[in-house]
Amino acid sequence: MAGNSFGKIYTLTSFGESHGVAIGGIIDGCPPNVVLDFEAIQHQLSRRKPGQSKITTQRKEDDEVQFLSGIFEGKTTGTPIAFMIKNADHRSGDYNEMKHLYRPSHADFTYDQKYGIRDFRGGGRSSARETIARVVAGAVAQQVLAQHNIRFSAYTSQVGHIKVEKAYQQLDLKLVDANIVRCPDAETAEKMIEFIDQIRMEGDTIGGVISCVIENVPAGLGEPVFDKLHAQLGKAMLSINAVKGFEYGSGFGSIQLKGSEHNDKFYTENGKVRTQTNHSGGIQGGISNGEDIYFNVAFKPVATIMKPQETIDSDKDTTTLNPKGRHDPCVLPRAVPIVESMAAMVILDFFLMNNLYLNV
Amino acid sequence: MAGNSFGKIYTLTSFGESHGVAIGGIIDGCPPNVVLDFEAIQHQLSRRKPGQSKITTQRKEDDEVQFLSGIFEGKTTGTPIAFMIKNADHRSGDYNEMKHLYRPSHADFTYDQKYGIRDFRGGGRSSARETIARVVAGAVAQQVLAQHNIRFSAYTSQVGHIKVEKAYQQLDLKLVDANIVRCPDAETAEKMIEFIDQIRMEGDTIGGVISCVIENVPAGLGEPVFDKLHAQLGKAMLSINAVKGFEYGSGFGSIQLKGSEHNDKFYTENGKVRTQTNHSGGIQGGISNGEDIYFNVAFKPVATIMKPQETIDSDKDTTTLNPKGRHDPCVLPRAVPIVESMAAMVILDFFLMNNLYLNV
Amino acid sequence: MAGNSFGKIYTLTSFGESHGVAIGGIIDGCPPNVVLDFEAIQHQLSRRKPGQSKITTQRKEDDEVQFLSGIFEGKTTGTPIAFMIKNADHRSGDYNEMKHLYRPSHADFTYDQKYGIRDFRGGGRSSARETIARVVAGAVAQQVLAQHNIRFSAYTSQVGHIKVEKAYQQLDLKLVDANIVRCPDAETAEKMIEFIDQIRMEGDTIGGVISCVIENVPAGLGEPVFDKLHAQLGKAMLSINAVKGFEYGSGFGSIQLKGSEHNDKFYTENGKVRTQTNHSGGIQGGISNGEDIYFNVAFKPVATIMKPQETIDSDKDTTTLNPKGRHDPCVLPRAVPIVESMAAMVILDFFLMNNLYLNV
Amino acid sequence: MAGNSFGKIYTLTSFGESHGVAIGGIIDGCPPNVVLDFEAIQHQLSRRKPGQSKITTQRKEDDEVQFLSGIFEGKTTGTPIAFMIKNADHRSGDYNEMKHLYRPSHADFTYDQKYGIRDFRGGGRSSARETIARVVAGAVAQQVLAQHNIRFSAYTSQVGHIKVEKAYQQLDLKLVDANIVRCPDAETAEKMIEFIDQIRMEGDTIGGVISCVIENVPAGLGEPVFDKLHAQLGKAMLSINAVKGFEYGSGFGSIQLKGSEHNDKFYTENGKVRTQTNHSGGIQGGISNGEDIYFNVAFKPVATIMKPQETIDSDKDTTTLNPKGRHDPCVLPRAVPIVESMAAMVILDFFLMNNLYLNV
Repeated sequence: MAGNSFGKIYTLTSFGESHGVAIGGIIDGCPPNVVLDFEAIQHQLSRRKPGQSKITTQRKEDDEVQFLSGIFEGKTTGTPIAFMIKNADHRSGDYNEMKHLYRPSHADFTYDQKYGIRDFRGGGRSSARETIARVVAGAVAQQVLAQHNIRFSAYTSQVGHIKVEKAYQQLDLKLVDANIVRCPDAETAEKMIEFIDQIRMEGDTIGGVISCVIENVPAGLGEPVFDKLHAQLGKAMLSINAVKGFEYGSGFGSIQLKGSEHNDKFYTENGKVRTQTNHSGGIQGGISNGEDIYFNVAFKPVATIMKPQETIDSDKDTTTLNPKGRHDPCVLPRAVPIVESMAAMVILDFFLMNNLYLNV
Repeated sequence: MAGNSFGKIYTLTSFGESHGVAIGGIIDGCPPNVVLDFEAIQHQLSRRKPGQSKITTQRKEDDEVQFLSGIFEGKTTGTPIAFMIKNADHRSGDYNEMKHLYRPSHADFTYDQKYGIRDFRGGGRSSARETIARVVAGAVAQQVLAQHNIRFSAYTSQVGHIKVEKAYQQLDLKLVDANIVRCPDAETAEKMIEFIDQIRMEGDTIGGVISCVIENVPAGLGEPVFDKLHAQLGKAMLSINAVKGFEYGSGFGSIQLKGSEHNDKFYTENGKVRTQTNHSGGIQGGISNGEDIYFNVAFKPVATIMKPQETIDSDKDTTTLNPKGRHDPCVLPRAVPIVESMAAMVILDFFLMNNLYLNV
Repeated sequence: MAGNSFGKIYTLTSFGESHGVAIGGIIDGCPPNVVLDFEAIQHQLSRRKPGQSKITTQRKEDDEVQFLSGIFEGKTTGTPIAFMIKNADHRSGDYNEMKHLYRPSHADFTYDQKYGIRDFRGGGRSSARETIARVVAGAVAQQVLAQHNIRFSAYTSQVGHIKVEKAYQQLDLKLVDANIVRCPDAETAEKMIEFIDQIRMEGDTIGGVISCVIENVPAGLGEPVFDKLHAQLGKAMLSINAVKGFEYGSGFGSIQLKGSEHNDKFYTENGKVRTQTNHSGGIQGGISNGEDIYFNVAFKPVATIMKPQETIDSDKDTTTLNPKGRHDPCVLPRAVPIVESMAAMVILDFFLMNNLYLNV
Repeated sequence: MAGNSFGKIYTLTSFGESHGVAIGGIIDGCPPNVVLDFEAIQHQLSRRKPGQSKITTQRKEDDEVQFLSGIFEGKTTGTPIAFMIKNADHRSGDYNEMKHLYRPSHADFTYDQKYGIRDFRGGGRSSARETIARVVAGAVAQQVLAQHNIRFSAYTSQVGHIKVEKAYQQLDLKLVDANIVRCPDAETAEKMIEFIDQIRMEGDTIGGVISCVIENVPAGLGEPVFDKLHAQLGKAMLSINAVKGFEYGSGFGSIQLKGSEHNDKFYTENGKVRTQTNHSGGIQGGISNGEDIYFNVAFKPVATIMKPQETIDSDKDTTTLNPKGRHDPCVLPRAVPIVESMAAMVILDFFLMNNLYLNV
């Protein structure tokens, strides 16, 4: 109810504030007998962690995950998997002056309105540090689905005005991690990095688009009407900090096409039903059709900038917010594993749901 | 679980197929003692119903709602409100040849993959006729929220390449119903209607954008982390048939701005905290901040066209789908009340949720 | 949230008041491709309906169920199954004087406290007429489970002080319907009927116990910790009108035994793990072990009696409630199919849940 | 879905195995701005912890709770409250021989059937050590409700054949902790302790009844139909390890009374609606009526005894289970705070739910 849980069958309930004792969560509904690759989980966390390159915030965190339950002799047992990551680099002192201050386009004011109290240190619960829990749960989900050959590949496809012009099919998605901006198109990546670095030096921030491709999803996943596969994916993505938009398949671009151009023609390939185009983005009527699922996620420029900003305090008096500490000029490189993680949780949930009637 | 329910507190569970006995639903969690305006509910249904103008399908349905429970002497009682709308214009015969046929970009194939059975008449459960239940539940929600002055105004802002260039603040939203395409900008509306009529004569279809504005939402609504206000709105919109994308506030456009340009500056107006710009779309950190909430919803061109299409049947043999019956060249005019309805259900849910701690 | 839905996967959302238009519900999550036996459903309703014998209320209702969706050519389609039963024998006039009156041990006062409004005709939503929806959903669940040979047998095992002394294993459960009190022990049944008839003539009411046996439940059903199989069964039974207690297996009787006497010894029979005794009632650690599940449900004497009673009205003034109309001297015979229905919904829910990990 | 969460608004998701790293949970939906009394929480844990007296198991655990999130400057913030208790006294070695062994009336066999894997050390997830998380969440709930004067008093009312004959109104519930068996009737308590000690020396176990009284619950709590207040209480109690039965108000005893004897007559006292008797146990139609809520919970003799038992192993071969380690001859004294905790979670959930419509 209070919004800290995600999923229906494979569920994550997360906890933790930016400068509290720890961030973590409980995964419930994970199938038993799955051999976990702990290094792979830690690897996804490393892709998300701060301080990994010059274009990310310099906050220092090891972000090492500790599992507390639900695993026995390296395998999942079907019972809840609790985990936590201790917060190390507190520097809470940095935030004392923010106690009574509402940072523009942050959640300070709205949390105060909602709860009448907030842990103001580093944004408290509203900090994107919360996404650590998503990455752990998503990494586990990816491992379960990898057994069925389902693969998730997210990448930075646009930063500001700099955009990958190629479709995902023309890219080598194995190259996502070949550069620090996580764009598999080397030439565009270079421009993006340069641009972000310039934005960083200005003390400013910039947004962009993360694209994601999910391969080998079997036909039949998704629940029609309210819980359509893409509706759940959309919710998952929109719940990530700084996300302002979501489109799948032909998305907003579908507006320019007529039905006769947009419809995906069916044909048969090696006895399998396929479509000649994939404007549907692998989903028809809210249910997967076996083609690649792909979608775009728009991220705004994050609100923390290294420039003085006029604002108000909790007494509604005008004041100035002075820049301090560290910031991410562009969150997209670190958000790539988060997008993959949320996608994996959604797909696993529907995958398990699809088993419900197997035995009837 | 099976995806036919929406909402956590104010919930709709819907039922019905396009050519079954009836379409309807159960609203649970409606506050007691609300005096219902039945004409207003029927009015929203009329805005959605087929055959209302030359640019909509000519299927004939009265779409008169009958309430079965939960209302006593004109007031809600706090118990479940069941309702149904009988299906009149069956013409099931039209669909016999579709029994074994997979219509391109429809849900025929995916339903077969998921369930191994489907009511093929008119798309069965996957038909947009299902949205009737949403409109009833949304109309009731709008009435509850109108008591708090919260208003929902959706309108057609783009059809194909024809687009309203003005921001919503420059439009008179009371004029939405002044024309059959439901665009409050008269000049653009005319072009849209002409364009849709041309598409209709071609036997083709076209998509577009519906924009929606929600006024007077109090600050503090929404649950952070996974159930952010905009994440739930996004899911709600993406669950509507033919929707391919969602963006709120600055949306995909935010990509072009720097943080210093995008941040909404706080100021105080008559003792109320306001922002000078509203790129946030009335939502910060997933919680409403008291400014207008606004968002865009992208609709694809619907798949039913009046042209022959090559496709395959359930034996995977190639065949031709011949056009037959009636179709909507553009669903946007009829989708306007659906967008308002889903928005109202989301806002009412969060509104009620925000009462939880009032008395503690 | 508002308590009108039951189940997690196979769910029933019910609606309707005693003297409203109709009683009914929506079953969601029913597996597709199940051939329904409509006569069997109607038969369960007939076992519940009023006026079936001299020891039940004489209210006249046909209680014929009409299905509105989710069934195609006699089979379930996996989409929501909506159904309704029209209310025929209104006689609302009987209730006008109860408008401002709080009947002792009824829900009149508490509904007023909770909602500030109530449909006072025949108890409105609090009437046991609501259980019709349970019987329909339970009858469908029984049919799904019958495919796996799972059988539900409830019977009246005690009325007032008159009690079946034999254990269920010593009874022929096929004889439950051999008499109007639904007790398979003919001799005891006769005494019960006589006793109820005497109570009826006094204008009074009497309670009792319904016992229920579930055979052929496979081992492994139930979710440990909070959703133990017996916890869910207990909730299901306690939600039935007039129920005051629930026990399973050795139940309250277990108190008199020592652990060494109470423990069920394992042994192997034809390669199957069995227990020599079954104090566990077929459930260990909240999970079925393959033995028979059995439990008892205590029903209080219903509150509607044919004697004048002193009470208060909504102005808190003392007044007299005069008997009027018809009443059930003992609800147990009609409650037998309700107990079976709730049990079937619980078991089907866990049965389907147990499929979740089949394919991983 | 997987059964490790409890509650709808005030929710606990728990984790942990008997011999894993830690036991703990996440409380979500706790109202903000509640000043927590950490000593009081720890006190409830001490009442549950092992080794507290000669009639409990001698396992040594400090059971000190550590909070990880959701609390700022001693107050709840409305965000998830995560907590954990490290497991100290492992002695996992004790359990190596149980690896392949199915202990009679334990969950070893059923967990294996359900999951195909289990953490066999000390019963793993099926151990009653899991109830620690319930006590923490319940203690917090009790503090929230104490602000409204709602009080929970559970006590041991029966052990084997030794029973408190007085009604709860005749007892001084402040004396519950005056003796180690937690029975406020000093004379009976003495007999109980003596009896348990004798059972302990036999290496055997014994069950009993815990009674619970909830005072000052306002009228109007509970959701009718499926989520009746007593149905939820019943589920809560039946989910506690070793519980076999639940009854509220007149319970199974109601069977012996006629309606005319059992009905609770209304009257007015100082302008408040009261009932002269309270067979209803403070609940009518599933909704609280303002009278005391009271109920009984039956506990079986726990399955771990200090006597050799014949059983089978996972190869279905006969073998002998030799007693080893430590055991609780009677769990009731330690279960008293667990019963209070579950009751408090149920009441707080309904209390918050009742706020939903306050502002409409």
